[in-house]
Amino acid sequence: MTNKLILVFTFFALLLMYSFKADKKKKVIFFGDSITQAGVEPKGYISILKDILAKQGINGYELAGAGIGGNKVYDLYLRLEDDVISQSPDIVVIWVGVNDVWHKRSFGTGTDADKFEKFYRAIIKKIEAAHAKVVLVTPATIGEKNDYSNELDGDLNKYSSIIRNIAADKQLPLIDLRRIFTDYEKANNPSNADRGILTADGVHLNDKGNQFVAEQVWTVLKDVK
Amino acid sequence: MTNKLILVFTFFALLLMYSFKADKKKKVIFFGDSITQAGVEPKGYISILKDILAKQGINGYELAGAGIGGNKVYDLYLRLEDDVISQSPDIVVIWVGVNDVWHKRSFGTGTDADKFEKFYRAIIKKIEAAHAKVVLVTPATIGEKNDYSNELDGDLNKYSSIIRNIAADKQLPLIDLRRIFTDYEKANNPSNADRGILTADGVHLNDKGNQFVAEQVWTVLKDVK
Amino acid sequence: MTNKLILVFTFFALLLMYSFKADKKKKVIFFGDSITQAGVEPKGYISILKDILAKQGINGYELAGAGIGGNKVYDLYLRLEDDVISQSPDIVVIWVGVNDVWHKRSFGTGTDADKFEKFYRAIIKKIEAAHAKVVLVTPATIGEKNDYSNELDGDLNKYSSIIRNIAADKQLPLIDLRRIFTDYEKANNPSNADRGILTADGVHLNDKGNQFVAEQVWTVLKDVK
Amino acid sequence: MTNKLILVFTFFALLLMYSFKADKKKKVIFFGDSITQAGVEPKGYISILKDILAKQGINGYELAGAGIGGNKVYDLYLRLEDDVISQSPDIVVIWVGVNDVWHKRSFGTGTDADKFEKFYRAIIKKIEAAHAKVVLVTPATIGEKNDYSNELDGDLNKYSSIIRNIAADKQLPLIDLRRIFTDYEKANNPSNADRGILTADGVHLNDKGNQFVAEQVWTVLKDVK
Repeated sequence: MTNKLILVFTFFALLLMYSFKADKKKKVIFFGDSITQAGVEPKGYISILKDILAKQGINGYELAGAGIGGNKVYDLYLRLEDDVISQSPDIVVIWVGVNDVWHKRSFGTGTDADKFEKFYRAIIKKIEAAHAKVVLVTPATIGEKNDYSNELDGDLNKYSSIIRNIAADKQLPLIDLRRIFTDYEKANNPSNADRGILTADGVHLNDKGNQFVAEQVWTVLKDVK
Repeated sequence: MTNKLILVFTFFALLLMYSFKADKKKKVIFFGDSITQAGVEPKGYISILKDILAKQGINGYELAGAGIGGNKVYDLYLRLEDDVISQSPDIVVIWVGVNDVWHKRSFGTGTDADKFEKFYRAIIKKIEAAHAKVVLVTPATIGEKNDYSNELDGDLNKYSSIIRNIAADKQLPLIDLRRIFTDYEKANNPSNADRGILTADGVHLNDKGNQFVAEQVWTVLKDVK
Repeated sequence: MTNKLILVFTFFALLLMYSFKADKKKKVIFFGDSITQAGVEPKGYISILKDILAKQGINGYELAGAGIGGNKVYDLYLRLEDDVISQSPDIVVIWVGVNDVWHKRSFGTGTDADKFEKFYRAIIKKIEAAHAKVVLVTPATIGEKNDYSNELDGDLNKYSSIIRNIAADKQLPLIDLRRIFTDYEKANNPSNADRGILTADGVHLNDKGNQFVAEQVWTVLKDVK
Repeated sequence: MTNKLILVFTFFALLLMYSFKADKKKKVIFFGDSITQAGVEPKGYISILKDILAKQGINGYELAGAGIGGNKVYDLYLRLEDDVISQSPDIVVIWVGVNDVWHKRSFGTGTDADKFEKFYRAIIKKIEAAHAKVVLVTPATIGEKNDYSNELDGDLNKYSSIIRNIAADKQLPLIDLRRIFTDYEKANNPSNADRGILTADGVHLNDKGNQFVAEQVWTVLKDVK
């Protein structure tokens, strides 16, 4: 081949690679607990987000759920390689914390606050080592009362603070559902009900909650490059 | 004796009884847990309240503590006869709730919310049957953080609500320390410390806390007839 | 009436009273938790005991259940008057303890060992004050493994010891189901299953368990005069 | 150099390396919780084991402690690299489990049985990948009562079974302190005391306990090649 021909070939090869890259969808994995496990169901927040994107003609994303009921932060850690890294995600949305708090009460096996942070940071480190972006999410709610009288409000706020601090410390995008839900309940739960506003049982999202979360996720996710 | 003489005698007898009654001090028993147990120590809130009254020249009260560390509502119930009723109090200030919440975490033996209310009401019933007045107090704090991120804030708010509802339902005087402390922390704990403002360890009153509680108690107690 | 006639009348009156007393059935109330609540169902241990007595032609007993799911010792205490004393029982069989231990794990609201004993003794005192006999029963099992590896075995043994000590101290009849079940499991649970031998779920009796308990209860109950 | 000379040199070099290797002490790291943290103190079990070896003229071992109070299995996992692997041990003795059970009660943050096994196996895997041998130890005791009436006996037996199963499954040496202590208590604790036999407080070894454990450890350790 002449040098000229090589240059032409190289040009087209690069063009092809570029167009291919441009076409490649961003793979987003939602990594979490039962709320995320339900998120892939027809009315779940992940499915709704897919619809939102489709309606807007946005087709640059591939959304997948990796949620397992009852998972705490160290459950995510233990299955991170198998369920997330091995799928080569571009973005991993970590949404965990409800069970780390809740299981203290229900099984005596919640997660110590300092270990919560250690495993959380260890997960981020491994995801970043796999060249994926990370989005953090605070646990939304265990009980929807709006006056901080849900049994586990204090601890849930404490663990949400830990996540906020990690996000600030590592400059990571954050979907602060804890704060967003708290504000929403103050404005939209006049009877101070403990469920039925955005959740079916105080924890798991109802239809409105799934819609709400899908919208909140997109608000942040759309800016993750 | 002539009838006339009898009348005169009766008159003076009644006068005497009345003056005696007027002189009789109101016996106030503070019924509670370790916070009240510490309240009778030299710098405790009960001792401080005695000083406050003495300085104001008010000598119509006799203040006594009946606090035992670790007590929950049903501990109060079990020792109500021996430690309170048998002392013939005029007023009983019930201050309980911290351990009912705390022991869920530390021993697995906290008190169910509905049983908390049942025993609380049973205590009131027995005190009233003994012709004493009852003053209710909500549990002040387990951790002094001002943003509802103390681990047990939610549950403590829940149990405080139960006490508020009983007070409203039965028209009983209430010293709402939970609300008073929460407001105080928002105004006076700018660094969001979990202790050291009104408590030594997040639960037990420091000098400032004892002074503060003594004043708050008097605000309500002075109007209990 | 002549004195002679009075004597004759008195004789017959006494005879009548005696025969009436002889005819009066002994009312036995089984006072407990969900296991006893299920005991009155067609295949429950109380129903089976009725059948056993009927088949043997024994008709001197009236058996009734007063079991409510989730009850701990202080729940029994709180409803003792309404559900038991008011029914004028001759014998009360107290079977409680599983939830006092279990709720430590599941709700954080188990019963402290020393309070368990206090309420237990308070119940006995009230029943005896109502001139009824008391029969004590130790909690059978939470998990049927036969090698002391059920999570709550230690605590269940501890609370059973408390009941045994009360029975010995007060010379009361005891149906020691804890020991009886433990022995049974060692002999009849070769695969070391955690359920399915005498219980459906490790706690609640299956058909065989109900039959077994009915027989064990009768062994003791028949001698309570 | 001639080839002949090279061969001779190589021969002596290998001889030297071999003799060096023969002289090299086996580095044993005891990896655990507060019991092991205390083990390196003058009267601790690790110090005693050093004495035992010294008296027997055995100088092929270097013993080191890596115990931190309050550690559960996942705490060991999190600091495995820093505290153990980086020290290039030949043998790692893993002694953990008390807090995994105990913290369920005291903090609500014990370890789920299935996660206990997962982290335990993950630790073994990493140690073996670093070419060190592993010795497993079951948790000895939480309370010394000999009739399975210590509150946490059931759960401690359950977690000990998990360790036994791992040892059997992976053909690893096991120091079954749970079984050894249980047998010892039956023979040497006639008053059924809950402490004071081999422990000071039911958990942490007293002088006799440290001596006993040192001997038990050596029984197994001496055969680990």
